[in-house]
Amino acid sequence: MTGPSSFHFADALVLRVRELGHPLCVGLDPHLDAIPALFRRGSMEPAAPETAAAVEEFLTAVIDRLEGRCAVVKPQIAFYEQLGAAGLAVLERAIARARERGLLVLLDAKRGDIGSTAEAYARAYLEPTSPARSDAITLNAYLGLDTLEPFAARARSFGAGLFVLARTSNAGAGDLQDLQVGDIPLFVRVARALAPLQQELVGKETGWSSLGVVFGATWPEQAEAVRAELPNALILVPGYGAQGATATDAVRSFTRGPAGLEGGIVNSSRGILFPARADTEDAATWERALEAALSRAITELAEATR
Amino acid sequence: MTGPSSFHFADALVLRVRELGHPLCVGLDPHLDAIPALFRRGSMEPAAPETAAAVEEFLTAVIDRLEGRCAVVKPQIAFYEQLGAAGLAVLERAIARARERGLLVLLDAKRGDIGSTAEAYARAYLEPTSPARSDAITLNAYLGLDTLEPFAARARSFGAGLFVLARTSNAGAGDLQDLQVGDIPLFVRVARALAPLQQELVGKETGWSSLGVVFGATWPEQAEAVRAELPNALILVPGYGAQGATATDAVRSFTRGPAGLEGGIVNSSRGILFPARADTEDAATWERALEAALSRAITELAEATR
Repeated sequence: MTGPSSFHFADALVLRVRELGHPLCVGLDPHLDAIPALFRRGSMEPAAPETAAAVEEFLTAVIDRLEGRCAVVKPQIAFYEQLGAAGLAVLERAIARARERGLLVLLDAKRGDIGSTAEAYARAYLEPTSPARSDAITLNAYLGLDTLEPFAARARSFGAGLFVLARTSNAGAGDLQDLQVGDIPLFVRVARALAPLQQELVGKETGWSSLGVVFGATWPEQAEAVRAELPNALILVPGYGAQGATATDAVRSFTRGPAGLEGGIVNSSRGILFPARADTEDAATWERALEAALSRAITELAEATR
Repeated sequence: MTGPSSFHFADALVLRVRELGHPLCVGLDPHLDAIPALFRRGSMEPAAPETAAAVEEFLTAVIDRLEGRCAVVKPQIAFYEQLGAAGLAVLERAIARARERGLLVLLDAKRGDIGSTAEAYARAYLEPTSPARSDAITLNAYLGLDTLEPFAARARSFGAGLFVLARTSNAGAGDLQDLQVGDIPLFVRVARALAPLQQELVGKETGWSSLGVVFGATWPEQAEAVRAELPNALILVPGYGAQGATATDAVRSFTRGPAGLEGGIVNSSRGILFPARADTEDAATWERALEAALSRAITELAEATR
């Protein structure tokens, strides 16, 4: 690792969100069974060699149309891993293309491991020479706060952003996350434990921290509890659109900044990548469907954060 | 997915452990700064193209020498991910070679995610056509029990083994895992919640379940608490050797079977891959060092489980 860089994820993200007027993050999750007809090739089985090529062509078309429209994209690495090494190569090129297009890249990897293994993950994704070099990553802290340290080191050296899982929006999320520990639920305890790192990683320009948390939009009341513990943390809200939360729910934890409500990003994956009428062989029809879905999400989130 | 297969991870593993007389699992964790001189090429920086080739040559030599000596190997995927797509290709070939050599493969990935993402991870590693097709995988259940379901489906269809994180051996492990939930620690609560799946995945031949847990050897007393919750679960003990636990500590949760103490596997990574005197350019010296480390671990574990 080299010395401190001038890049700071939270500052870069929030300044861009203010400029664009909305906190939309587009999830780059290539569900194989939903790739539009325009891009599909052959069986679309994960092991078929033409599948990775189809996924790449689709992603390239999407990324090129996101330039100048949103601050950040979030590839979910599982959808690339299911294609094996060929899928990882697609991910590497998609990330590079997104960064060339001026988009910040938040890799949704939810990694969590100890010691030298966590160090290897941090080297894999958060260094300037990493093959799938991303601006930020999602992490799982179940193994302990020490497991975040290799990632925090990249936040210090390269300005990387870290989003630690707090409360998710799936049906079983409460199995562990909501368990009462003393007088608070476990997810609030996780948030409280992150407060010192949050403070350390606050950006000079915006006051927002490159230590963020993942918090599902379907539980807006609980978002306020997390915000109380972490006043400067960006919140990644994954449950907007296909997962059922409204734009207003999604920004419940946001606070007022110079250009409106701010303090997080709201992800939509399927709602934008696979909208109604986008499964077509006609390029112009596909482009109109993507554009309509993108514009609707942008408008809703711009209004909700006004 | 197709119909039920005759393969059952726990049955296959335990029968092989009984045959060999020890529960050693060898961790295939290619630490770049520890690859012996015999195999090193160039700078060994992750991004250097010859690094993946050096790692592959080293792994091939190790795997070939493990044939007939241990039941299972455990590649830690982070060490491959840090090499990017080229590293995943090395992992795919290393896994295939290990399986050809009659070794079971437990992929240490600690994945944990929701819905279609968990489904994509299960497709990536646990299906017959998966590019890095493994016999078992490690999982993180912080996001809830529903997130295990896609993996449980592969346990039912293909006999896959699942090892869910309970209590790890790192310094910060207690930050979340030891928190008291009612009158028990969180890790015991996790174990208790896994009991129904454990019961469902019990093998006909040995009575051991393909639902296992990860439990660090440095906390042997707590292992008994987990064993009480999960009498049929295999326990993956990662802390033996370099992490400081003795062979006797490592098998504390084992119970008596027809050929000695059984009910888990004990992993050693650095202790076998990178023993003293193995960093040499001389092939015969390297082979002797590996063999000595392997024999010592086998002897210790055979004695501890007698």
